[in-house]
Amino acid sequence: MPPVKDVYIAVIGAGGVGKCFLSQLETLSNRLTKNTSSLKLSLVLVSRSKKTLYSPQYTALPYSNLASSLDSSTQEPLSLPKIIEYLAAAPAKVVLVDNTSSQDVADAYPQVLEKGISIVTPNKKAFSGSYKLWQDIFSAASTSGAKVYHESSVGAGLPVISTLKELVDTGDEVTRIEGVFSGTMSFLFNSFAPTEGKGGKWSEEVKKAKDLGYTEPDPRDDLNGLDVARKLTILARLAGLQVESPTSFPVQSLIPKELESVGSGEEFMQRLHEFDGQMEDVKVQAEKEGKVVRFVGSIDVGKKEVKVGLEKFDRSHPIAALKGSDNIISFYTKRYGANPLIIQGAGAGGEVTAMGVTGDLIKVLERLS
Amino acid sequence: MPPVKDVYIAVIGAGGVGKCFLSQLETLSNRLTKNTSSLKLSLVLVSRSKKTLYSPQYTALPYSNLASSLDSSTQEPLSLPKIIEYLAAAPAKVVLVDNTSSQDVADAYPQVLEKGISIVTPNKKAFSGSYKLWQDIFSAASTSGAKVYHESSVGAGLPVISTLKELVDTGDEVTRIEGVFSGTMSFLFNSFAPTEGKGGKWSEEVKKAKDLGYTEPDPRDDLNGLDVARKLTILARLAGLQVESPTSFPVQSLIPKELESVGSGEEFMQRLHEFDGQMEDVKVQAEKEGKVVRFVGSIDVGKKEVKVGLEKFDRSHPIAALKGSDNIISFYTKRYGANPLIIQGAGAGGEVTAMGVTGDLIKVLERLS
Repeated sequence: MPPVKDVYIAVIGAGGVGKCFLSQLETLSNRLTKNTSSLKLSLVLVSRSKKTLYSPQYTALPYSNLASSLDSSTQEPLSLPKIIEYLAAAPAKVVLVDNTSSQDVADAYPQVLEKGISIVTPNKKAFSGSYKLWQDIFSAASTSGAKVYHESSVGAGLPVISTLKELVDTGDEVTRIEGVFSGTMSFLFNSFAPTEGKGGKWSEEVKKAKDLGYTEPDPRDDLNGLDVARKLTILARLAGLQVESPTSFPVQSLIPKELESVGSGEEFMQRLHEFDGQMEDVKVQAEKEGKVVRFVGSIDVGKKEVKVGLEKFDRSHPIAALKGSDNIISFYTKRYGANPLIIQGAGAGGEVTAMGVTGDLIKVLERLS
Repeated sequence: MPPVKDVYIAVIGAGGVGKCFLSQLETLSNRLTKNTSSLKLSLVLVSRSKKTLYSPQYTALPYSNLASSLDSSTQEPLSLPKIIEYLAAAPAKVVLVDNTSSQDVADAYPQVLEKGISIVTPNKKAFSGSYKLWQDIFSAASTSGAKVYHESSVGAGLPVISTLKELVDTGDEVTRIEGVFSGTMSFLFNSFAPTEGKGGKWSEEVKKAKDLGYTEPDPRDDLNGLDVARKLTILARLAGLQVESPTSFPVQSLIPKELESVGSGEEFMQRLHEFDGQMEDVKVQAEKEGKVVRFVGSIDVGKKEVKVGLEKFDRSHPIAALKGSDNIISFYTKRYGANPLIIQGAGAGGEVTAMGVTGDLIKVLERLS
């Protein structure tokens, strides 16, 4: 039997995804112990907004009542630099799990990786910000040998990033990537312009999606297209394009010009119906061609073109036939020819997003030497 | 700079998949050298049927003119035990790439793994033979620390095995797996019972598929359903079912009873048209229900039921809407709920099968400590 190797896990962010991840981490940790694995995972830090729970001596925090222990923690909250300092001083390998969507945390990744601390995260900000941050992250990882995985930054737990990486790493030529990358947009258009039946008015569908919790608290954060643009930025970079930022290519916003400057999300929702005619025109135009409209992103690798916006699809097209809030991502490559490699399924939700994070953690553990 | 670590690669099988793999290996090997990776891959052995080309001192074989060098090799062909002996004596880590579909090679996997030699392979035989062989393979790997990957044993390069493993390893509950697992069957039924139009007679579609090279030399090797049964056996075992063998569950053969005992594939093809009525009945029956017939495999994990055969699907169902010789695999799980995680694309062909093998090789290299 090889000696047991400690790996310390630190988790920043304990909201929807964070809570699901902590539960999956507990299960994984117990499984490793039960299977007398040579790895022993110890959760040593959990933090969210103004609260930190950590173990100064790097002993494992208990999972039972973790959420309430964090709530009632009387430990001095650690700032991000202090957290990094604490982890860098750990007497074994450390994996930092960033379950936030914070730009501040993302900006610190190069510094974290330089210190040999590996990162797994669903946080899109680090990989879709400036191209310099992207370069700094992977160069820091390459130098120190620390790992960085971010499967859930696109399509939640769906194997999107890993598949694209494998296509590239095995020498295939990716020519085009297209798909529906937002669960919110998927739900909205599958209801607004269904392949069968009429669908409702645009503002009513947005309200329904909001009431069901499918949109951000302010739906404009979905309708501006930036979330999809961030995902496209990540995929385009992995496919070899030097995309400068998620605003450096055409992104169609579904926020009517007149409502761009209204103060609150509530006012936006109250006035959205005034512009139902615009979206209705788009739907009717597509219907005249026997098609339906969908909000998609696409990358033409050869032409170095990335774009996000409305497009029309035949009713029998897989993108048109999506259900619920599913994502679909099609990879067109030299090897796969005319019929793309397609990945489809839920692209949002706490459990499936956390699954991508846990899957990444397993990959890091398998690669820690 | 860490010291450069040698890894020796041995390749058994240099047919369709083997040739594509060798070309991908050369590209990968050059890329590692160019990126001043800490790994240096050396191809030290290539063998097929009665020919072996190997380097007694474990120096790298040149890739240029490899096929003709193998053809004209005057080295004494090495038997399988001799190959294993040669690899076990290598002064560094070794990965054996089995690009054959040989049961003999598959039976030797436990012995290979015991010696610390890792394996990557598209060979279904090892993982769909007796349950004892399956157990021996993974127990040998677990004991020695050698790795064994077989992504291309189901769906060629599509991320099927890795996705299923990740669902299981991250604690999801897989309830049902279903899909079209044979490129040949996909092509046959997409032509015979298309979602639009009439399709041809069954025997004519089989002949067309054979002429296009989509079937085995003797089409009965596809029509008996065993290839699909082997793939289902592998997935069911990964999902936790102790499936004894690919003949231990119901498999519908499309070979008419009367033709089971004819001597040659040619005679079979000549007489197949006599039984077109049987398949026509199946097609018409489905049409009456507004459906199309497809050859599918399914695993009900809860009920521990595995089956392979004809089933009817609505024309709008993703399985009905497949194109060409594509595979589609749907994973129904607790986390994904009503809408499954779906993987779709070419599930056969030299390049995409080799891609799965090369991808597995990269995974092994990343995990070799």
